[in-house]
Amino acid sequence: MRDSHNIRLAVIPGDGIGREVVAEGLKVLDAVGLKLETTTYDLGAARYHATGETLPDETLAELRGFDAILLGAVGDPSVPPGVLERDLLLRLRFELDHYVNLRPVKLFPGVEAPIAAARPEDIDMIVVREGTEGPYAGAGGVMRRGTPHEIATQESLNTAFGVERVVRFAFEKAAARPRKKLTLVHKTNVLTYAGDLWSRVVERVSAEYPEVTTDYCHVDAASMFFVTQPQRFDVVVTDNLFGDILTDLGAAIAGGIGLAASGNVNPARPGSESWAPSMFEPVHGSAPDIAGQGKADPTATILSVAMLLDHLGLAGQAARVEQAVAEDLIGRQTVWASRSTREIGDDITARVAG
Amino acid sequence: MRDSHNIRLAVIPGDGIGREVVAEGLKVLDAVGLKLETTTYDLGAARYHATGETLPDETLAELRGFDAILLGAVGDPSVPPGVLERDLLLRLRFELDHYVNLRPVKLFPGVEAPIAAARPEDIDMIVVREGTEGPYAGAGGVMRRGTPHEIATQESLNTAFGVERVVRFAFEKAAARPRKKLTLVHKTNVLTYAGDLWSRVVERVSAEYPEVTTDYCHVDAASMFFVTQPQRFDVVVTDNLFGDILTDLGAAIAGGIGLAASGNVNPARPGSESWAPSMFEPVHGSAPDIAGQGKADPTATILSVAMLLDHLGLAGQAARVEQAVAEDLIGRQTVWASRSTREIGDDITARVAG
Ligand SMILES: CC(C)[C@H](C(=O)O)[C@@H](O)C(=O)O
Ligand SMILES: CC(C)[C@H](C(=O)O)[C@@H](O)C(=O)O
Repeated sequence: MRDSHNIRLAVIPGDGIGREVVAEGLKVLDAVGLKLETTTYDLGAARYHATGETLPDETLAELRGFDAILLGAVGDPSVPPGVLERDLLLRLRFELDHYVNLRPVKLFPGVEAPIAAARPEDIDMIVVREGTEGPYAGAGGVMRRGTPHEIATQESLNTAFGVERVVRFAFEKAAARPRKKLTLVHKTNVLTYAGDLWSRVVERVSAEYPEVTTDYCHVDAASMFFVTQPQRFDVVVTDNLFGDILTDLGAAIAGGIGLAASGNVNPARPGSESWAPSMFEPVHGSAPDIAGQGKADPTATILSVAMLLDHLGLAGQAARVEQAVAEDLIGRQTVWASRSTREIGDDITARVAG
Repeated sequence: MRDSHNIRLAVIPGDGIGREVVAEGLKVLDAVGLKLETTTYDLGAARYHATGETLPDETLAELRGFDAILLGAVGDPSVPPGVLERDLLLRLRFELDHYVNLRPVKLFPGVEAPIAAARPEDIDMIVVREGTEGPYAGAGGVMRRGTPHEIATQESLNTAFGVERVVRFAFEKAAARPRKKLTLVHKTNVLTYAGDLWSRVVERVSAEYPEVTTDYCHVDAASMFFVTQPQRFDVVVTDNLFGDILTDLGAAIAGGIGLAASGNVNPARPGSESWAPSMFEPVHGSAPDIAGQGKADPTATILSVAMLLDHLGLAGQAARVEQAVAEDLIGRQTVWASRSTREIGDDITARVAG
């Protein structure tokens, strides 16, 4: 896809273990042998405490100029809940129109999963989580706060425009996979307005993809099936909040949050008006409890780097990184628990380079 | 608590396997040896098709006169999604002010759970799900339906009144259990208005329960921990929708939806103005795919009957039923898969009677 292999990458290490895992992700990226220019942005808790800023407008404008963004994790208990999440992380997703939040749920061979009966071939799906609307829109309010008559509301906003584009992306993904199955997860029997919109859009778009089988699953049942019958799922398309919950659950069944990668994707054609850089990040948070101890597993970040390469059209390089991770994971059956964040990064880097 | 052991019970078998499992629940209830008067109501899909009615006002008024309600399951693919759920099941929960939706998540010895590492002592919690507000309020709407400019909204309504009463109930439950631990599950970093209300209420009420340890977990992380570290949880208090998702997941980790019981509880003092009968039902649905085949497991309904007895102050009888189920579950390690709905009901009934 790309002629020159020159990548301009913005890096936001963020807080806590974010800095540690991003360092390893960059090491692996270097080993792939591309021309890489990185610029680091110190957004996160420290910057917020120092200057009160979360995401200055000039920084956002600068970020738009990169090919992609690599993010570690943001969040710290010293910052009031919601501030960095809403004004930094979600603001990036919304402003850069990351309407596809792509989260593979895949059990690699050699990884010990908590589900007794699961084999790698049973857990291999992609969750396509909507990334720019739903309950994440931030709509809502509070009245009579702190009194016995307080009422607090949260509003989920769903548009035909927003739902259709992510559903269409999910159909494309499903059509490109061997099983060609797409499952809509929602709660149509209770969230009847939004559920009706999602259902109608899936039904309408499905006419254009006769080769894709579609089905539907309520979010409560889906949570159960992730544990009892994960082989039901191939591509899952769902709302922002349901996707948030299901992908953490997906991480759990696929060997833990230390392995779960994600891409906040703006699928527009580079050069088109709606294009903006996509952002890749591990699903895990900043984990302040283990920060600075070299205990964090950088694998989720390294797999996110593979997704980043794939997104930039560098499929061969992406496959090399994923292959190196797969080999490392098989090796863990014997060496696990003994390696630091850096050692894991070094080992995977060596495999990529070798 | 009750002087005479005369129970006036309303029974709503409902649809699909609801009828089959309720028959077994009643058999067990009979064997307990109480004076029992039952009245059956034919609410559900058949009634809806025959008369267009879901829950006539006169029926609702009658139901208020019973001590308790036993419900099988409602729902059928022949009825548009949401109709029976909203106009029958949720209407009962709302009108009878079942603000506590009580759902134990307990791994009985002998039950094969999907989580490889889980022992019965690791999975023993109660989820206290709010039952009358949140995203279930039905608020929302649609504009420009069917056009490219459609917008569909769903609103979560949370009141200090509604949150405080369920939180208070959860603290009482936690204080009465050996571990005395209460976990609030929400998504405070995104649903900031509702999350802030829930957090403040838990913090305020916790001052009255110094013996109870409280903590907080985001719903995405909680879904992960249900699988990887279920022993984290003792009593969980949460919103209506999060509770819906977590309790299906809870059923999965505790051996399957065939064992998951629930109570829709109105905790008011009998005789007081806000009292109404509580309603007990298995967590599973009407399962039209296996209806009429004698394949459904009636255990969830029988455990719901135990909760019903306990709610009516008949703790001894409740314990007898739960004990009979526990014994039957241990036996299943050898006899499983060979018994019909009725046979399981008969076996448990025999243990209760014997
Ligand atoms: C940090 C938080 C706002 C975020 C989300 O809810 O999307 C995280 O949980 C995730 O899944 O990336
Ligand atoms: C049938 C449906 C409306 C219901 C709910 O969402 O509460 C069910 O899933 C449950 O958990 O009892």
